[in-house]
Amino acid sequence: MSLNTFGHLFRVTTWGESHGPALGATIDGCPPGVPVEPGALQHWLDQRKPGQSKFTTQRQEPDAVKILSGVFDGLSTGTSIQLMIENTDQRSKDYGEIAKAFRPGHADIAYHLKYGLRDYRGGGRSSARETAARVAAGGVARSALATLVPGLKITGYMVQMGARKIDRSRFDAAEIGRNDFWCPDPVMAVEWAEYLDHLRKDAHDSVGAVIEVVASGVPAGLGAPIYGKLDSDLAAAMMSINAVKGVEIGDGMAAAELTGTENADEIRMGPDGPVFLSNHAGGILGGISTGQDVVVRFAVKPTSSILTPRRTINQAGDEIDLITKGRHDPCVGIRAVPVGEAMMACVLLDHLLLDRGQTGGVRGEIG
Amino acid sequence: MSLNTFGHLFRVTTWGESHGPALGATIDGCPPGVPVEPGALQHWLDQRKPGQSKFTTQRQEPDAVKILSGVFDGLSTGTSIQLMIENTDQRSKDYGEIAKAFRPGHADIAYHLKYGLRDYRGGGRSSARETAARVAAGGVARSALATLVPGLKITGYMVQMGARKIDRSRFDAAEIGRNDFWCPDPVMAVEWAEYLDHLRKDAHDSVGAVIEVVASGVPAGLGAPIYGKLDSDLAAAMMSINAVKGVEIGDGMAAAELTGTENADEIRMGPDGPVFLSNHAGGILGGISTGQDVVVRFAVKPTSSILTPRRTINQAGDEIDLITKGRHDPCVGIRAVPVGEAMMACVLLDHLLLDRGQTGGVRGEIG
Amino acid sequence: MSLNTFGHLFRVTTWGESHGPALGATIDGCPPGVPVEPGALQHWLDQRKPGQSKFTTQRQEPDAVKILSGVFDGLSTGTSIQLMIENTDQRSKDYGEIAKAFRPGHADIAYHLKYGLRDYRGGGRSSARETAARVAAGGVARSALATLVPGLKITGYMVQMGARKIDRSRFDAAEIGRNDFWCPDPVMAVEWAEYLDHLRKDAHDSVGAVIEVVASGVPAGLGAPIYGKLDSDLAAAMMSINAVKGVEIGDGMAAAELTGTENADEIRMGPDGPVFLSNHAGGILGGISTGQDVVVRFAVKPTSSILTPRRTINQAGDEIDLITKGRHDPCVGIRAVPVGEAMMACVLLDHLLLDRGQTGGVRGEIG
Amino acid sequence: MSLNTFGHLFRVTTWGESHGPALGATIDGCPPGVPVEPGALQHWLDQRKPGQSKFTTQRQEPDAVKILSGVFDGLSTGTSIQLMIENTDQRSKDYGEIAKAFRPGHADIAYHLKYGLRDYRGGGRSSARETAARVAAGGVARSALATLVPGLKITGYMVQMGARKIDRSRFDAAEIGRNDFWCPDPVMAVEWAEYLDHLRKDAHDSVGAVIEVVASGVPAGLGAPIYGKLDSDLAAAMMSINAVKGVEIGDGMAAAELTGTENADEIRMGPDGPVFLSNHAGGILGGISTGQDVVVRFAVKPTSSILTPRRTINQAGDEIDLITKGRHDPCVGIRAVPVGEAMMACVLLDHLLLDRGQTGGVRGEIG
Repeated sequence: MSLNTFGHLFRVTTWGESHGPALGATIDGCPPGVPVEPGALQHWLDQRKPGQSKFTTQRQEPDAVKILSGVFDGLSTGTSIQLMIENTDQRSKDYGEIAKAFRPGHADIAYHLKYGLRDYRGGGRSSARETAARVAAGGVARSALATLVPGLKITGYMVQMGARKIDRSRFDAAEIGRNDFWCPDPVMAVEWAEYLDHLRKDAHDSVGAVIEVVASGVPAGLGAPIYGKLDSDLAAAMMSINAVKGVEIGDGMAAAELTGTENADEIRMGPDGPVFLSNHAGGILGGISTGQDVVVRFAVKPTSSILTPRRTINQAGDEIDLITKGRHDPCVGIRAVPVGEAMMACVLLDHLLLDRGQTGGVRGEIG
Repeated sequence: MSLNTFGHLFRVTTWGESHGPALGATIDGCPPGVPVEPGALQHWLDQRKPGQSKFTTQRQEPDAVKILSGVFDGLSTGTSIQLMIENTDQRSKDYGEIAKAFRPGHADIAYHLKYGLRDYRGGGRSSARETAARVAAGGVARSALATLVPGLKITGYMVQMGARKIDRSRFDAAEIGRNDFWCPDPVMAVEWAEYLDHLRKDAHDSVGAVIEVVASGVPAGLGAPIYGKLDSDLAAAMMSINAVKGVEIGDGMAAAELTGTENADEIRMGPDGPVFLSNHAGGILGGISTGQDVVVRFAVKPTSSILTPRRTINQAGDEIDLITKGRHDPCVGIRAVPVGEAMMACVLLDHLLLDRGQTGGVRGEIG
Repeated sequence: MSLNTFGHLFRVTTWGESHGPALGATIDGCPPGVPVEPGALQHWLDQRKPGQSKFTTQRQEPDAVKILSGVFDGLSTGTSIQLMIENTDQRSKDYGEIAKAFRPGHADIAYHLKYGLRDYRGGGRSSARETAARVAAGGVARSALATLVPGLKITGYMVQMGARKIDRSRFDAAEIGRNDFWCPDPVMAVEWAEYLDHLRKDAHDSVGAVIEVVASGVPAGLGAPIYGKLDSDLAAAMMSINAVKGVEIGDGMAAAELTGTENADEIRMGPDGPVFLSNHAGGILGGISTGQDVVVRFAVKPTSSILTPRRTINQAGDEIDLITKGRHDPCVGIRAVPVGEAMMACVLLDHLLLDRGQTGGVRGEIG
Repeated sequence: MSLNTFGHLFRVTTWGESHGPALGATIDGCPPGVPVEPGALQHWLDQRKPGQSKFTTQRQEPDAVKILSGVFDGLSTGTSIQLMIENTDQRSKDYGEIAKAFRPGHADIAYHLKYGLRDYRGGGRSSARETAARVAAGGVARSALATLVPGLKITGYMVQMGARKIDRSRFDAAEIGRNDFWCPDPVMAVEWAEYLDHLRKDAHDSVGAVIEVVASGVPAGLGAPIYGKLDSDLAAAMMSINAVKGVEIGDGMAAAELTGTENADEIRMGPDGPVFLSNHAGGILGGISTGQDVVVRFAVKPTSSILTPRRTINQAGDEIDLITKGRHDPCVGIRAVPVGEAMMACVLLDHLLLDRGQTGGVRGEIG
């Protein structure tokens, strides 16, 4: 991974600013023969696109994706794929204070210090709008995975908003698509709606969230120790998403509280090979997938663009109080769910290709 | 990062197995003119080396490092540096069951499935012994940082063992080097000693831990969005350490519980530039360092090699009960502290060079 | 370099097919603050664009470049730059035999064997049309070089067409832009014109060429031994251009004929440092620039798309005779001149950034 | 990004200086299950090692290779392989003038300018001694190729010394191992011996050479356009060898002299697929192997360390005349033959793995 590219063999370079003419993803290393249709990509982009409920930014973007290269007669050719999404609702406006002031908790000041100049319009490159390109690229990765590993399935959902966590005993996968929060717990979905309405309308505030992404049907053997470990790459991928501050695999931070006897995912022999009796490891041991579900969680901090004034400075060094008007997500974690799924898809495909290159995909035998 | 290498410009490739003749680190991209002395590297290796207290493995290894290349008259020449540590206490023994059985919670089965064969002696490549090479490489990185950024300081310590967390109100940096746990809380250090004695001698068990690593004096501007972000690379680096299951930057997973007003690290103007009134961000915004302390935490799961029997299978597919004899760490998190510091040093140096390449190290002005 | 990307820190990924909707270059790692204007890029693209004389393909393409990202108020921001060139004259036609037959000497059969499918329209990805993206990226590199190394100058020209070589005693840099061949020898330019007219109209044939690219004002110290050597990267860059079969640095292949006494570029001390009395080395010693002119030559084979029938096979395995109609360059080497210049610019900038990262750009002192 | 590393998936990092304690190669990405025996590696190292005839340096080095990691029970495990060669005949001596003076035509001055300091003992890192590490790594690559592509064969030989070229009509592969020059022409071998004796003893001079390396049995489909082309990577690999100034694929620079009709390698259908009637392309079209012999040539300049005085300067800026005593190769091209073979092996294996990763190794069908 370097600068704006991630991946070893399935390499995605994203480009584009929030209020520029377009943004997109350049994909290098997609295997040939993978079906890549605009409609299929659009399906995933529609899940992330803004303005779909009162709980996300009211910016209206169709997020229509154009495939400019690398696909012929509906199939990838093995050459670089260019996916472009034109911006349509980048409001022409006076950016006023924001152009020269630094929102506390936002990348504004960091970009200014590093680069000396920045595209301040809508957050420029640091805007979460960049994640649309990830979702588009993830759509290609999903299609390749569907071709190469038919049974593989990726499911993302929100498990926590603020201090409010789902009750795992109420977990219902079918519920995920039925509410505005990708919430698998129908009771909590209602509670979150009320809470977020309050934050948005009364408190003029935002809130953080925790997302979980699970991949089932992942072949054993993905991951290239020591530094191309599957969990290491997943951690990098998730931490690279805007506003993410923590990443967990399996039991994550809670693994610290376990003893060795508790943490051991005991193994029995099933008809099709090893069967694990628990999954504290989150499907990854020594950086390599074991065939169990790969389980990743990440925490998204609250949006820093809020209507409540905060103390800050501007480029001239003046101390000011700042509120951020405009169209912002009160809980940016919601729209991070399809982004997390996309990153999972990209990392898994990347490691599938990497493993195929290194080992030929042959697996050690048991029994 | 790819396979056994990490870093963009300061690239470290580690090699070696637990019971092979030697292990080491090949460093590519160290700036010229950096003092590299065996004694200085040994200082850091001694912090990680086994057998120093009853709370770590009793394997006796001097971990003496040899500099085989890239250094002339005590200074790095800019060419590749080879650091070698010879193994001396790899016991010649019958590996018995372990050679063909898979310890639950251990990388054994994953390596077998991926590669079809594995060096089972002492865990081979998946042994935490590999981290000695990281610490050696980190020593070079520290020396380069000391040359390039004189005020920069890296401090690691343990903040949690099992469910027992330090009391931050008792935090005393001077305490860290005085106990066997790198514990900054003298009261908790005593409690941990008792608890670990119990686990080790009575319960025949092991336990997890949380490590925190703080870098102060880090220049603003390090990190290369979107996918070479400083936090993304730190997450990958820490997650690549053996047994790590979660990584946090700043408030980490707890950031999910904050509102935007709480999370905003407000900014005032100090005599030397911006001053932040809090550090929920852990010193990184938009993937770029801000000049605040860079704060990383990671959770280490309990050692899977324990004397309590666990159910598992062997290579023949037989269901067995397994206990792991030998010399193992009851809390491998302890020795992960210098490893975490080493990774922090490597990542910071890498990004310092990367930033110097991309921007020339010039910073945007404020005021 | 990997798949469709070249460069270490200044990384260019090109995309697009000859007859697709567009092609372009994704640039990652451009330093911030570099002036990037469409007009400046267009200047270079106009030098390569087709249809400018009777000696190049008659396809009409304005090669108008759009800057979609990474530039704000006319300056690079340090984020990824997307340059797009829309195709306008991709004739809608029946590709007939070409769709399923393999032109001898062309990439057709290699793409088919590797990928199993290919975009056959106009050569798809293997078309020299891809080089437009290189020239656009090279324009950005030139602008960055102009900012960072004011005196640096890159000049490309043709030194040989078929067996006809220029007479170096008649070398006149001012002549290069005055003829259709970038020929610095006015006498030879006339001879080439007659020869190519004959080939084109009477012989229905094509011919090869040799291009030389010289960079003056290159700072000493660029190049990262052993495998990121400046000459190694230049060789890779030039060999990656369509139809190139040989690359030489300085005396090149003729260096084999020299003795050590002849080959030694003797050194004297000038007012501003070392002065070399000759330049057999082409400005590079041990993979590192010395401050002398960097001199690269490469040979371009003749276009394989010709009107003279050649024996070949088609996808069905039938043996056929094939002629290639359509608009093709009788001497594709002509348009390779600006491409070679672009690659030189990209490689030099890349190594300038790399060196700045590794050494800080500080040079060893003499005297 | 990589300084001392080459390769995409089969990655080799070399380390070590001419007069340091040891040198070696760190190999990352070797497939598991490849036989790696010291004896097999030694076979290749013995071909390159110095002091074997009066025509190479009289330094005596056994070049005994030790395998320190990545191999278990004689097979590669898929983890990083460390190969170490200890130096034994690095004479303890006064380096005198060489320590502070710059040999004309040598990397001395370039290293000094770039790094500010250099290991001047025996040329340090810029010594051709580094190529021993390449040959060792090439031995591993050959073993992996033998496992994966049984029929593949790599043959290197010298085709030119000074202006004296072999007569291709006398080409006899069996002759290559029978003389001191890897010369396939027995008549020319005798002529070279006389000429080099004269240069060495009477003229106190050195001379250049051209090496050709041919790989037969290479599968079609290796090479990753546009910038990971097989020919581009071969060019980089060969140009990275010490003293190389030119690289050719197939007809190389002479391709410029051909017309399209001459250059077209016509294709007929044989019993096992396409048969090419000529091989101007050197087995590579569009950067992808076609199944024909892959043919690479490179020119090696004469050794710059000669006993004839040359004008130069020293670090203090004094103008001096310099002769280089010591043990040097009068024609360093001779020992470059096994190095060229090693690089060919590494590049082919690398692309085999890369292709396997990207396409699964499936080939398009003909007929």
